[in-house]
Amino acid sequence: MSGSKCTRLSGALVKQLLDSVDSVLFDCDGVIWRGDQAIPGAPQVINLLKKSGKKVFFVTNNSTKTRKMYAEKMTTLGFNVTEEEVFGTAYCSAMYLKTVCKVDGKVYLIGSNAMRQELEAVGIQQTGVGPDLISGKQADWANVPLDPEVKAVVVGFDEHFSYMKLNRALQYLTQQGCLFVGTNRDTRLPLEGGKAVPGTGCLLQCVETAAQCQAQTVGKPNHYMFDCVASQFGVERERCLMVGDRLDTDIMLGSNCGLKTLLTLTGVNSVADAEAHQKSGCAEKQGMVPDYYVESIADLLPALQG
Amino acid sequence: MSGSKCTRLSGALVKQLLDSVDSVLFDCDGVIWRGDQAIPGAPQVINLLKKSGKKVFFVTNNSTKTRKMYAEKMTTLGFNVTEEEVFGTAYCSAMYLKTVCKVDGKVYLIGSNAMRQELEAVGIQQTGVGPDLISGKQADWANVPLDPEVKAVVVGFDEHFSYMKLNRALQYLTQQGCLFVGTNRDTRLPLEGGKAVPGTGCLLQCVETAAQCQAQTVGKPNHYMFDCVASQFGVERERCLMVGDRLDTDIMLGSNCGLKTLLTLTGVNSVADAEAHQKSGCAEKQGMVPDYYVESIADLLPALQG
Repeated sequence: MSGSKCTRLSGALVKQLLDSVDSVLFDCDGVIWRGDQAIPGAPQVINLLKKSGKKVFFVTNNSTKTRKMYAEKMTTLGFNVTEEEVFGTAYCSAMYLKTVCKVDGKVYLIGSNAMRQELEAVGIQQTGVGPDLISGKQADWANVPLDPEVKAVVVGFDEHFSYMKLNRALQYLTQQGCLFVGTNRDTRLPLEGGKAVPGTGCLLQCVETAAQCQAQTVGKPNHYMFDCVASQFGVERERCLMVGDRLDTDIMLGSNCGLKTLLTLTGVNSVADAEAHQKSGCAEKQGMVPDYYVESIADLLPALQG
Repeated sequence: MSGSKCTRLSGALVKQLLDSVDSVLFDCDGVIWRGDQAIPGAPQVINLLKKSGKKVFFVTNNSTKTRKMYAEKMTTLGFNVTEEEVFGTAYCSAMYLKTVCKVDGKVYLIGSNAMRQELEAVGIQQTGVGPDLISGKQADWANVPLDPEVKAVVVGFDEHFSYMKLNRALQYLTQQGCLFVGTNRDTRLPLEGGKAVPGTGCLLQCVETAAQCQAQTVGKPNHYMFDCVASQFGVERERCLMVGDRLDTDIMLGSNCGLKTLLTLTGVNSVADAEAHQKSGCAEKQGMVPDYYVESIADLLPALQG
């Protein structure tokens, strides 16, 4: 196979690439679906890959769903998937806190109910989920009652994010030894029609600015998402393909972990974006250049049906 | 007078410095008061300075009070002050939007009622003040109704800051030509006993991360705060002293504007902090080294009473 980067994947090259891997990791939004619509052909691609004996996994930075919720959504859209194959940051953050940080206590959670459920599933209690509105004055805010069992602040997507949550996070983080973990740094969630809403990266940056320190992050491009899959399923890096629509998270994760990488053009980034990184002469940006690209993962279908 | 920096101001040097200036600018919190308590001796210092013919002004990054509210607080604490002598960022941001930006429309305000009042006083209407809680789902958030008259997003201190406000700011800032102004970048509001609550800088950073662009800021160390005083009262830079407790805002403002600078140790920074900047060899940090320091502005009293 050619050593040059960002090659269009078509014809005989598709089968050649698929034959060279045992496992395929897919990002979700912009790759296998957009919002509540499957990318046309994506369910067939996933189902045929599994039928042909490939291990297939889903790695998403979105922290608003449990593994179970993802598996249900996928089943509804026609994907033949089990929850064990899904690695979202709600689940992976819970695993990270338990197995890497070995948190010995509660977490103060800025995040969703899904995050609460995944934390509880690994035996970690939380406080903080749901609305937390302002009351009192500055002196009261600085002396807000804190749960003495809290040993970590965790920030994921939280539609109830508020000044009081920011303040509570700061008060916990001012305590000696309090851990600080974020699910991911995506600054926007892209929606149909070029629109977007603020992502977890904005909330994390807000808390980091107050705390004057950086959180450890779990999501792509941090290698932990891959480690989590690999430790449970024995994935061999050299025989693994990462498929995604974002250069700074999906393709970077693949580069960071020594995987083959495939950009699909149904989401955020274009071939021109990848070429700009290639030409930049900057080693970090060149880590965001994929090995291959396709218009859509449906382009893999002919090789799987043949 | 000596050319060396960070000299302790005492004895004959006090009168010498005061004789060399016509105007004195004071920061408020940590300088003339702490919370709701006047710094002992501060009211006498201010009142005697004015009696001796000096012009005295108050420049604060705090955006939660109108000029009138500040003047009332000062009167209660024994300071002989009029609202025309007070330059807070609620007032200065309104002036900045009107005279520098020449905003021709409404502003979307993440901020306090005091900011709303100062905006209205210069004829600028706002939308946004008060709570804005989440409802609906992602697609609804991206399509939240926008006021077509809004031409600028303004971020100050807002205890009702929420995800929905962040989202609304992003939707406005995505529109062609929308201005983006912040009152100040202070990341924390220091309180008694070493405690602190999150400052406007956290909220501004959060909105900037979502918008992927930087706001123009009005507050110290930006020279606009001084320009605003100077344009109304004809202050001569060479004969003006800036007194503050923070190196990165107060002393930096003085350096940026060519004023004499005096650090007081009743607030955030210490002489050791200033010396560390002096030794850094970094020009920007050396701009944060004051000409003089005092334990408290009460140290000016003997020269004024003599």
